[in-house]
Order: sequence, then structure tokens, then C-alpha cells
Amino acid sequence: MRTLQNRVKEDGVVIDEKILKVDSFLNHQIDAKLMYEVGQAIVDHFKEKKITKVLTIEASGIAPAIMASLHLDVPCLFAKKAKPSTMTNEFYHTDIHSFTKNTTSTVVISKQFLDEDDHVLIIDDFLANGEASLGLHRLVQSANATTTGVGIVIEKSFQPGREKLQSEGLDVLSLCQVASLAGNKVKLVDE
Amino acid sequence: MRTLQNRVKEDGVVIDEKILKVDSFLNHQIDAKLMYEVGQAIVDHFKEKKITKVLTIEASGIAPAIMASLHLDVPCLFAKKAKPSTMTNEFYHTDIHSFTKNTTSTVVISKQFLDEDDHVLIIDDFLANGEASLGLHRLVQSANATTTGVGIVIEKSFQPGREKLQSEGLDVLSLCQVASLAGNKVKLVDE
Repeated sequence: MRTLQNRVKEDGVVIDEKILKVDSFLNHQIDAKLMYEVGQAIVDHFKEKKITKVLTIEASGIAPAIMASLHLDVPCLFAKKAKPSTMTNEFYHTDIHSFTKNTTSTVVISKQFLDEDDHVLIIDDFLANGEASLGLHRLVQSANATTTGVGIVIEKSFQPGREKLQSEGLDVLSLCQVASLAGNKVKLVDE
Repeated sequence: MRTLQNRVKEDGVVIDEKILKVDSFLNHQIDAKLMYEVGQAIVDHFKEKKITKVLTIEASGIAPAIMASLHLDVPCLFAKKAKPSTMTNEFYHTDIHSFTKNTTSTVVISKQFLDEDDHVLIIDDFLANGEASLGLHRLVQSANATTTGVGIVIEKSFQPGREKLQSEGLDVLSLCQVASLAGNKVKLVDE
């Protein structure tokens, strides 16, 4: 998606060889119109498939997910980060490790919003090691629902996330694939 | 806003006399189309005013805020809950107390995304005691920016939030005003 790719090149801030900061349009300040187009591009890719629900994780996944949800006219569900102490039988839960933050969070979704008839499009802002998307996929599996595919705004293609998701048989769409952040420079896959 | 009010009446779950759960369309599962209309209704109210930025707080504020932002064609900024240890000079920060959760969180926005030329529309999912909206207003003031108004999806009118915001001179729009949750029943102001 060219407008997104240009934006990542222009406004992305390389923190180190693994971390790209896109706080000006995605992770803190959000460009709503760009997210509207991101949602459309994701929906276009999966348009032949059955989708009954969009699933993401708070907080940065919500903007692209809700726009895809708007275009699809299906509900958007976001997994919440919860303390294990708040866990009850009403929730599906899984642990997700963040390599960037070096923390592990328990994330939950309420059982009432996902069941075996659901066909779920997982959407997230970043794909790096795949931990978040795999965690969401595990939540879908917990409900005996089906993951239709995974839509990602920015993929760090030099990390193993895509490979891990594909080895689970998942169809992965990434709208911007970053080949490298070496030398303080964003290099995209298709440039 | 009638569609929203009907939805609150039909799908809102009264937990106790102070807590209303709207997890099926706002706080966990989100109805994107409804949020699109919510965004439009908020923008309609403030359309004569200058707005350069929409400000909300993660996570449940993001959906209505990004839709208002889409209609206004201005950026949407969301304050992040941060540990005080991560605080640096690059951020404006304030503490926000949640009476519902009985917790106090430090929330931050990056200084680079708000300055004295900004006219800010604050949007949040709920208005109860006003702590969140007042906290966002303090962040706007920290940047010497101007708060244009406050747009709220659901107001608990039996709590003092609106009064507190108005005593700060703020124009408050709430799309659904809940008069009472007594007797396990949602009673709206205009019914």
C-alpha cells in the first residue's frame, strides 16, 4: 500500500536495528484517513473469504481494526490486557510475550463474543516475532472459531513473525513490509 | 442520539447502581458503524468551532475518537497509561483516578504532538466523575493549547462529571445521558 509505505519511510523513526517508532500516525497520534484506507486495503485482500468478526488487541490495534470492521460491517472485538487475578471462567485467556518491552501480558476476551460459528480476521499494527497475532489466534482456537486470516499494518520482515504465522496455515497480509532498519534507515521489501 | 440511546437501553448491563457495562458495542466488542455515527454526531455539535486535534485516552476512547477524527480530517491523539518510571521530559503527564477501578494511573502524551496552536476536542467513552476528561484537559493546558470542547458517548448524569467540566468553562456534549441505574434498570435523562 503505497501511501502507507511512503508514510513509514517519511515519518518512521528508527530507534535501533529492531525498533521502528511510528508515533506520528499509528501508535500515539493516529492518521484516521490513512487508517480508513488501511482498513479498506485489508478488507479488499480478504473479500472472497467469510468474516464474521475482526479481532485485535488494545491499544494500537484498535484504529486499523475498527476501520476494517466498518468496511466489513461486522463487529470489532479487542482483547484486553488483564491481571491474572481478574480472570474468571467467563474469559478465554492467553499469555503474550513482548520482545520489545521484555514483558509478558495475559490477554483476555469474553467468551460471550466469540463462538464456533465465528470466522475471524485478526488485525494488528505490527508483526515482528508474531507473538501478539499468535496469541490472538490461540484465543480464536479456544473458542473453536476459525481464523480467516491476519491483516498487519507494518511487518518487520527481518523478524520471524510471518514465518511462524504461515507455519500455522494462516493467510498473512502485511501492507508495509520493512526489510531492514540497519544504518538508521528504513528499507522496505519492495524498493 | 437515538440509535445510541436505544442500544444502551437494550444492550447495557447494569452491574450495580453506579456501573453500566456496554461491552457488546463499546468497551470490548465495538460496533464500528455505530461509532462512525457517534463520531459524526459529535462533529456536528462542534462544527462551528475550530478543531485541530482530537484527544482521547486508551483504550475504549479510541473508537469514537478516531471516527470523529475521520469526519474532521484532523489527527487523533491518544494519551497512554504509563509507569512513572518511563517518564521523561518529552512528555506531558498527569494522574487520573478511576473511582470504578479504585486505581490512579499516570497518563502521558508526547510533547511533540500538542502545542499552543492546537484547538483540541476531547472525546471519551464515559463521563462519570469527570476524572479522565479533566485529566485530558490538564494535558491540553500543559501544552498551552485550547480545549474546544468535550464529546462523550455515555454520561452518567447522576455523577458529578458534567458539573466539574462545566465549572472549568468547557462545552460538554454527551450523546446518551443516563439518569439512573437504580433497580437494575437503565433510565435515560430524556425519557
